[in-house]
Amino acid sequence: MDMDKLMRPTSVVVIGASDKPGMAGDATASSIRGLNKDRVYYLNPRRDEINGRKCYHALCELPEIPDCMLICTPAHVVPDYMEEAGKMGIRAAVVIASGFSEQRTEEARALSDKLKETCERYDMALCGPNCIGIINGIDNVCVTANNDETMTMLADDERRGIGVIAQSGYISSGFNNPNCDYLACVVSAGNSVICGLEDYMLYMVQEDRINCIAAYIEGITKPDVLIQALKIAAARKKPIVILKAGSSSKGGFAAASHTGSLTGNHRIILSILKKYGAIITESLEELVSTARMFAILDGKHPVHPSMAGINFSGGENTLCADTAERYDIALPDFATSTLETIQALVPPFATPANPLDATTALFSEKELVRKLFLAASGDSSIGLIAIGNDLGIHAEPKDLTCAEVLCEMQTEGILKPTLIIPSFEKTRNENLRQNLEHAGIPVLSTGEYAYRAIRHLMDFVSFDISAISSDPAIPALFPHEPLQKRTLSEKESKELMAKVGIPVPKQCLLTKESDLENACENIPSPWVLKVDSEDIPHKTEAGGVSLHNTTIEEAGEAYQKILTNCKKYNPKAQINGVLLQQQLPAGQEILLGITCDRMFGPMLLCGLGGIQAELFRDTALAPCPVSKKEALAMLRSLKIWPLLDGFRGIPKADTNALAELMCVVSQFAADHRNDLAELDLNPVFVYEEGHGAVAADALVVRYEAAATDTD
Amino acid sequence: MDMDKLMRPTSVVVIGASDKPGMAGDATASSIRGLNKDRVYYLNPRRDEINGRKCYHALCELPEIPDCMLICTPAHVVPDYMEEAGKMGIRAAVVIASGFSEQRTEEARALSDKLKETCERYDMALCGPNCIGIINGIDNVCVTANNDETMTMLADDERRGIGVIAQSGYISSGFNNPNCDYLACVVSAGNSVICGLEDYMLYMVQEDRINCIAAYIEGITKPDVLIQALKIAAARKKPIVILKAGSSSKGGFAAASHTGSLTGNHRIILSILKKYGAIITESLEELVSTARMFAILDGKHPVHPSMAGINFSGGENTLCADTAERYDIALPDFATSTLETIQALVPPFATPANPLDATTALFSEKELVRKLFLAASGDSSIGLIAIGNDLGIHAEPKDLTCAEVLCEMQTEGILKPTLIIPSFEKTRNENLRQNLEHAGIPVLSTGEYAYRAIRHLMDFVSFDISAISSDPAIPALFPHEPLQKRTLSEKESKELMAKVGIPVPKQCLLTKESDLENACENIPSPWVLKVDSEDIPHKTEAGGVSLHNTTIEEAGEAYQKILTNCKKYNPKAQINGVLLQQQLPAGQEILLGITCDRMFGPMLLCGLGGIQAELFRDTALAPCPVSKKEALAMLRSLKIWPLLDGFRGIPKADTNALAELMCVVSQFAADHRNDLAELDLNPVFVYEEGHGAVAADALVVRYEAAATDTD
Repeated sequence: MDMDKLMRPTSVVVIGASDKPGMAGDATASSIRGLNKDRVYYLNPRRDEINGRKCYHALCELPEIPDCMLICTPAHVVPDYMEEAGKMGIRAAVVIASGFSEQRTEEARALSDKLKETCERYDMALCGPNCIGIINGIDNVCVTANNDETMTMLADDERRGIGVIAQSGYISSGFNNPNCDYLACVVSAGNSVICGLEDYMLYMVQEDRINCIAAYIEGITKPDVLIQALKIAAARKKPIVILKAGSSSKGGFAAASHTGSLTGNHRIILSILKKYGAIITESLEELVSTARMFAILDGKHPVHPSMAGINFSGGENTLCADTAERYDIALPDFATSTLETIQALVPPFATPANPLDATTALFSEKELVRKLFLAASGDSSIGLIAIGNDLGIHAEPKDLTCAEVLCEMQTEGILKPTLIIPSFEKTRNENLRQNLEHAGIPVLSTGEYAYRAIRHLMDFVSFDISAISSDPAIPALFPHEPLQKRTLSEKESKELMAKVGIPVPKQCLLTKESDLENACENIPSPWVLKVDSEDIPHKTEAGGVSLHNTTIEEAGEAYQKILTNCKKYNPKAQINGVLLQQQLPAGQEILLGITCDRMFGPMLLCGLGGIQAELFRDTALAPCPVSKKEALAMLRSLKIWPLLDGFRGIPKADTNALAELMCVVSQFAADHRNDLAELDLNPVFVYEEGHGAVAADALVVRYEAAATDTD
Repeated sequence: MDMDKLMRPTSVVVIGASDKPGMAGDATASSIRGLNKDRVYYLNPRRDEINGRKCYHALCELPEIPDCMLICTPAHVVPDYMEEAGKMGIRAAVVIASGFSEQRTEEARALSDKLKETCERYDMALCGPNCIGIINGIDNVCVTANNDETMTMLADDERRGIGVIAQSGYISSGFNNPNCDYLACVVSAGNSVICGLEDYMLYMVQEDRINCIAAYIEGITKPDVLIQALKIAAARKKPIVILKAGSSSKGGFAAASHTGSLTGNHRIILSILKKYGAIITESLEELVSTARMFAILDGKHPVHPSMAGINFSGGENTLCADTAERYDIALPDFATSTLETIQALVPPFATPANPLDATTALFSEKELVRKLFLAASGDSSIGLIAIGNDLGIHAEPKDLTCAEVLCEMQTEGILKPTLIIPSFEKTRNENLRQNLEHAGIPVLSTGEYAYRAIRHLMDFVSFDISAISSDPAIPALFPHEPLQKRTLSEKESKELMAKVGIPVPKQCLLTKESDLENACENIPSPWVLKVDSEDIPHKTEAGGVSLHNTTIEEAGEAYQKILTNCKKYNPKAQINGVLLQQQLPAGQEILLGITCDRMFGPMLLCGLGGIQAELFRDTALAPCPVSKKEALAMLRSLKIWPLLDGFRGIPKADTNALAELMCVVSQFAADHRNDLAELDLNPVFVYEEGHGAVAADALVVRYEAAATDTD
């Protein structure tokens, strides 16, 4: 599949071209921009001429084999055109029409299948159907049903910009607004019968004039291509900014009915994106404003994830401190020499500090402003300068002076990465904004969006690609043979865990009381005794568990009592014996679990054991296998991290051992990506630093080929 | 103090009037708008004429006693003018100059004190100093240093609008932007030497043409006036929207250095505001966009706190569902009849649901749009209609049709409260926006702000004024005599709690072992024994606690052991005896605490006991006393509420008894507002429904007059 033919064709035929207003063909005929007009062909069997240009009646009449087709006909004739084109050697198409699988009727689905089959047979690249098409501002080729000429694109400019991919035509059109003047390319992915957002992403991460990708995602269907794209982006430090829809139950349902595809589990997709440092946003404005920031900074990122806040007034300065703290953005203290310099610049009653109320007065003198920004730029603890300024519509002298100094210093290369944070919508003076942004100083959206963008920037520069030691363990396709789940017993589960190197308590299955003495000699006391029977899942309820046994006599009594209780509880139960194991000393209780996603394979979950993880939604999730750095990052992301890291007299726990255990269990899950269904280590006891971590309980569920009649 | 003379003067003298650009007097002379020019007087001892009008040299020359002075002179001459004006009978002034207490020098503070004393002596209303003044768009009187004529005010319009109060001149100026076209009044409070934001708020809640108040607050100095204003607003259902700065440690410091005042504890102020249903925002854009929404709705609020989301596309529809869930906004299912109506309107492949992807196609036909909104408005489960629409700058037919239908239905009075939610900044077509808003349909700010505004609207209509049974127990002024804290012993604390009706375990102080038998007869077992000694604060460490004693013999042994341990631990300790008490069965552990604020009196805190409350920041705070409804609302606001309400097999706890206990302890604290320092009931055991709640431990700290030498 040749994506270039689709993304940057040098010749295009518009099938279903029209000059009737409101017809798709009208929009599209006028929307093929940038190409030499001689190599844009109109095709409509019922017309000889459109807008004074020749109109062909069939593909075979065309004077050349065009790179790409823009098909604006109704859905039912699309496959015939595709078949003909395929035979002729046309290798790319954009199909605008809806009426395919998204309509969820038998005919629509059949039509979609036919389209897919034809494209695959001829190895054609296809955008759509049910899409708006592709606007490529880098090569100035727009193969789209969106004929809005007002879209501000980079065009012949030398600048680099945002590549947008949207799994929603309406949303891709929404990027066409005056705030989006750094667009390099916009793709409306539509039904993604052939090319999916993963393919566009892979194309864009390799395109040098795209310096940032913004994607609206409803679902993923090509996990391997996605990961390939994410890896290239991470290696090239190209930011990928994502808005993933479907976080809510209603939203998940809406997304599914919208694209008619399997969307995959929302949280699992997020964990894959985060693994490679992609940036997750929560609204369209956050998506676009964050992407604009990255596009305008164009790789000029802060060295440290820290900020100097500089404001014109005390009120804004206070809000700056509050909001930075809310978003956990570091405002380090200025160095003493910086403070001295600032003290000499600001009025005597002002207090030099970070954030700084520089006072409006200071901004009336250009030389003072320059010295101030020089001081902030020169402070080695500062990564980024953020200036609270609305760039008032009336462009007051203070705003002009500030912008002028910033642009000068930026040109001279003596300004640290700098951003402008406005407080209110719709106050921007457009000239000032453009001057600043052309110089590489982004003017962010208002407060919340601005601080979120800065948080994302901090995360981006803190992202440690070396933490990734391997890719997710993507499983083989789900086999067609029926599989069934088998739950291993506690004993089997623990033995399996022990075999792969996970510390578990010593255990022994007693099938007769006389086994006891030998077992007690080999296993340190105190002991727990538990019934081992698949017919008694609720052991405690059945009286099948006994704790705190410290002598052989106690253990013997417990053995008898358990058998009596269980026979009484369920006389038909088949009892394998009584499991005797070391009762572990209590430690910090952590839950580790593996769930297996059909698309991305096993996922490791960690959190506080018990009811709290659920109530406080305090868990971390990552694809298997995890590296030790990744495991530690998961633990640090938990709200209960202070409990592990030492807090209020609680000693520091052996997080090192816990992280190693996480690596081992996640590697085991990765190795068994095709036959593991579930795995729980709950709880894992984590002891004081240097004293290790032990899985106190284990439960493994595996897939096995279903027993057939002949077995 | 006559606020009318300050807020709506009919005659004003500008002291320090000037026509030199850049001088305060220049701005101000031209900024007195709306008044009959004959009753605006200029005063400047060095000028005879300004801009062709007479300029007076002294106050005594004026032909009348003006209502108000706008003083634009430097700080040091202000008090003399005030003194002269006071003598003459002028009763209001706006002082622009800075150079008073905010400069934190001896002279500046003295100047400020003199200004205050003069105003108090003559009962003068004063705005400032260090402020921008007052812009009153209702009466069209602007007594301000802000001569920006572009501010869009209500002026002679009949509409009602927002009253803005800002403890920051720069921020009050910031409201002067094209988004703020529903301003009724803007006050820059400055140093608030006489009139504080509480006074302006009290004025505004009583002004009928102000239908919503937006306040930027750094600190509170008049708690009683604030509460009076909040109560009137709550009774009149007038929304008060607040941005309270100083949430962070750095922000709190910045606010303090900004206003030079005691700002009070941030969280305590928020709890006071919330008690009366004020709306708390977190950024300037959220403040202004929420206030605009309320101003434009002008009291036309949803009856239920629930929303129908209607969108033009699947993508926006999915995001609508996600964002509504994130902000906990109810999207109830439509009634069957509504679904049937919608099914007949939308294309066959669309799925009628809430939120609804109505499809762009539907919006091309006016009649369909009307039927759709009629169906949504007619559904009894729906409180509010929210439409995802960017009102594109190019005003496409679908946008025009939608707006037209909405305005018509609104005029006919058949539309439920309706809001427009745009996705992107800067896409609004201004004509469409104004048409909709003049009809009473607010166009919100983008995504995050829009959903926050809706959340606030839901909270506002859910606010139950009947939950408030009394006002906060504001304490008397801190007495000048030195007070000292006295910590009551556990026994004394519990006795005090028992006396006011709080269940505590039965207890008895044993001073000799022979007391034991009698005590054990009266107190149900098992028993805890604890040393009672002020010299042994860490009882457990000293071996001074014994649990689980069930027989008199065990209790006797424990008694002896405690005394032995404690004498060994601290041979000099004075031991009052050993406290024997019933050891309570374990229940859900809740922490209740009282801290006493100098300004707002005792505050009740509740949360999960132990380390979790701190880690998960899961506590609720309210001023004392609380009503039972307020106590229950506090409990429901906790993340751990499910643990009390029954969750995963945990039985429902006796929240009724807990709420009653909260009422009693908060009433006790209110009654002792002047002498209580701290009170902790930690933990309170809450038992299963019907089985009550008991304070297992209590600690009371009181203020007492310091012992003097002669005592």
